Amino acid sequence: MSSSSELEGYIGRVRDFLRSAGVSVGDEVEITVDEHEKVKGVLMSRYELAEPDYIVVKLPNGYNIGIRLKEKIGIRKLAEAKKPAFRPFSRIQSAPSLPRVSIIGTGGTIASRIDYRTGAVRPVLTTEDLLSIIPELANIANLDTSILFSMFSEDMTPSEWSKMAERVDEYVKKGVDGVVIAHGTDTMGYSAAALSFALQKPPIPVVFVGAQRSSDRPSSDSATNLIAAVKVAGHAPFAEVCVAMHHSHSDDVIAIHRGTRVRKNHTSSRDAFRSVNTEPIAFYANGEIQINIRDLNRRGSGEYTFNPRFSDKAFLLKFFPGMSGEIFEDIWLRGYRGIIIEGSGLGHVARRLIPTIEKIIRDGVFVGMTSQCIYGRVNMRVYSTGRDLLKIGVTSLDDMLPETAYVKLSWALAQSTDIDEVRKIMTTPIAGELGERSKPHMV
Amino acid sequence: MSSSSELEGYIGRVRDFLRSAGVSVGDEVEITVDEHEKVKGVLMSRYELAEPDYIVVKLPNGYNIGIRLKEKIGIRKLAEAKKPAFRPFSRIQSAPSLPRVSIIGTGGTIASRIDYRTGAVRPVLTTEDLLSIIPELANIANLDTSILFSMFSEDMTPSEWSKMAERVDEYVKKGVDGVVIAHGTDTMGYSAAALSFALQKPPIPVVFVGAQRSSDRPSSDSATNLIAAVKVAGHAPFAEVCVAMHHSHSDDVIAIHRGTRVRKNHTSSRDAFRSVNTEPIAFYANGEIQINIRDLNRRGSGEYTFNPRFSDKAFLLKFFPGMSGEIFEDIWLRGYRGIIIEGSGLGHVARRLIPTIEKIIRDGVFVGMTSQCIYGRVNMRVYSTGRDLLKIGVTSLDDMLPETAYVKLSWALAQSTDIDEVRKIMTTPIAGELGERSKPHMV
Repeated sequence: MSSSSELEGYIGRVRDFLRSAGVSVGDEVEITVDEHEKVKGVLMSRYELAEPDYIVVKLPNGYNIGIRLKEKIGIRKLAEAKKPAFRPFSRIQSAPSLPRVSIIGTGGTIASRIDYRTGAVRPVLTTEDLLSIIPELANIANLDTSILFSMFSEDMTPSEWSKMAERVDEYVKKGVDGVVIAHGTDTMGYSAAALSFALQKPPIPVVFVGAQRSSDRPSSDSATNLIAAVKVAGHAPFAEVCVAMHHSHSDDVIAIHRGTRVRKNHTSSRDAFRSVNTEPIAFYANGEIQINIRDLNRRGSGEYTFNPRFSDKAFLLKFFPGMSGEIFEDIWLRGYRGIIIEGSGLGHVARRLIPTIEKIIRDGVFVGMTSQCIYGRVNMRVYSTGRDLLKIGVTSLDDMLPETAYVKLSWALAQSTDIDEVRKIMTTPIAGELGERSKPHMV
Repeated sequence: MSSSSELEGYIGRVRDFLRSAGVSVGDEVEITVDEHEKVKGVLMSRYELAEPDYIVVKLPNGYNIGIRLKEKIGIRKLAEAKKPAFRPFSRIQSAPSLPRVSIIGTGGTIASRIDYRTGAVRPVLTTEDLLSIIPELANIANLDTSILFSMFSEDMTPSEWSKMAERVDEYVKKGVDGVVIAHGTDTMGYSAAALSFALQKPPIPVVFVGAQRSSDRPSSDSATNLIAAVKVAGHAPFAEVCVAMHHSHSDDVIAIHRGTRVRKNHTSSRDAFRSVNTEPIAFYANGEIQINIRDLNRRGSGEYTFNPRFSDKAFLLKFFPGMSGEIFEDIWLRGYRGIIIEGSGLGHVARRLIPTIEKIIRDGVFVGMTSQCIYGRVNMRVYSTGRDLLKIGVTSLDDMLPETAYVKLSWALAQSTDIDEVRKIMTTPIAGELGERSKPHMV
């Protein structure tokens, strides 16, 4: 008889079925479907709100599958729950031909759900855990892992960006061949942009990776994304701050996005991350890295600069039709030193806001213009509203993503207290964030 | 010898070429390209920042084309500039078999640039002007036109939404068969959502139309979009508030988007407008309307309700990683009665903001959650941050666009001062804004 915790997450008739078979989470089991189809693996725990009618089993190859409970199904225990035998860490490190990749855990779905036995939510990421779930990783790189944070990515602030950058720089100095940062997807785009400015032209790849589906779900993208991230970190000829996430609904292709050009464009889809106004810099498919664009920073280019400071006095403000000028005054009164506006269309706001914006710019606040259209580029010389905004000192930020512009401003404000210097930083391309030709089509 | 105003907008060598040929804007000309290709039409004026090397000619069929100045090109004047002969208005109205369509001008590229002779920027839209540019319209509907506003759409406020709704309702009461609203593209999505709530289940189609390229540019989309809009307004079997804009880069297909589901997703592309989390309700191609989704409101369905009031006490606020709780207090202090948050991912904000949000909700402010991902739907039950936000009274708005949620809130706040009633309005589908199944793919 299983105790409550031994069937964690299973409810209703599936729970009854498992209990009557005397199996527990972590047991090795064999499931027979429609009398002839047999599946062997380790019974995994479930989560709140997952589809309740499924039994989830981790296969010997490390992937999870979900089997729907129906009439013609049987289950039997092959072995009691046990900790799997690990390939000892010392043996992994004795493969000197493989590159060394350091994985930094910061929290989020990818780091928290990877638990070798029960899949229970815990923000832990050890090398042993990883290799027990995704044994392929041992053939790609010599891994070490560390936990920097265990937090939801929506709680990250510019202060966490600094700490992440500092941790990566430590690994750079240790001479590892690549760094992977496991990160929650909600603000991964912002963090990737932040590290793009903090670690310019790094000597090694810095690859953010997340998961849109937790690893207990049959459709989880954790393993495939992580394999691609480790491959790029250890083997890519380019050394860019980038994001590795599914390119499409299939498991076949992982897109490698530039850190300053990537956006979470869907709440839940596995291919939620998209390069905006440019193409992904590379793809990972069939075990190979395929480079997609030119002018990438090469490994060991020798031009590395490290500057991890960020200001918390930048504000991202989306324009909307009923907006009044008061909000600009409030932001100014709260001591913010810069505002990125997500304007309409080519970079506009209502003309009634212009006097207030002019006032705060005169007072030394940086105001930069991006577009809430997301795709395309601002052009403030086409209509008189744009020209008038330029006249009062609003800075046009071309095709920079609003989110990236906000992150860059946070970084720029930490580099200088001189508004002209900040303006110069904002309009100078630093990490591929600015000025590429837009593709005419939305991807 | 042409005077300065007679070659308006032409500069450099193109101006020299035209001047030496003795032609003026408005003249009927014949241009010979590569010795054998001949183009006849009326010479149009140009605009600041348009490609300087092109000569623009309006063809007899009403479309403009741009001809690049190159070596093997000749031009000769066929006739002096003259006002074209109009088909008299009385004759147009004497085609009783055609539906009556009223066009309301509010400003923007589509209304301001349509000038029959010079294309000069003026916010005028008369029936005569329209028919001289797009003669096909006379075969589609009996038109009348009126100017409600002459403004850039970024200057629109909830007060203009009310006035637009009232004007449309006047036309409904007059018994016209359809209404077209010519509108600037910057905030057309917001206005279309507004009229979707103000004019529910209207007896006739209400079709917003704009242009991404001004009509003096060879690539202008004014004429093709307007033809589709008039066709839908006069002939569609459905009576929905919708937006007619190019579906792709070609001139072949115009998409008809639901007013509550459409977003300007590119700053300049002709196919910038996209239906989000759903398909366009119809397409216009080859002179025909092709219906694309079910459950549309039929013409004359008899369920029309008209309520044009909007509150200016709604706020749209995008979450970003460095956000502090102060901004919520400031909005509350300014007397706003509702806030739509564009949260991260499935509908999150930093946990540190929760106490302030809880405080203003207790004080009677409505707080609704959407996602800055744009595509997909919020689901606040998956992670603890979302669950905690639900607990303090944040309202999850499912797959509603942030911009539509803001407009709907502005409308809801004008319907009731009771926060529970506002919450009920916000979570009840009214005009297709809420609760359709998301398509798994981004379009």
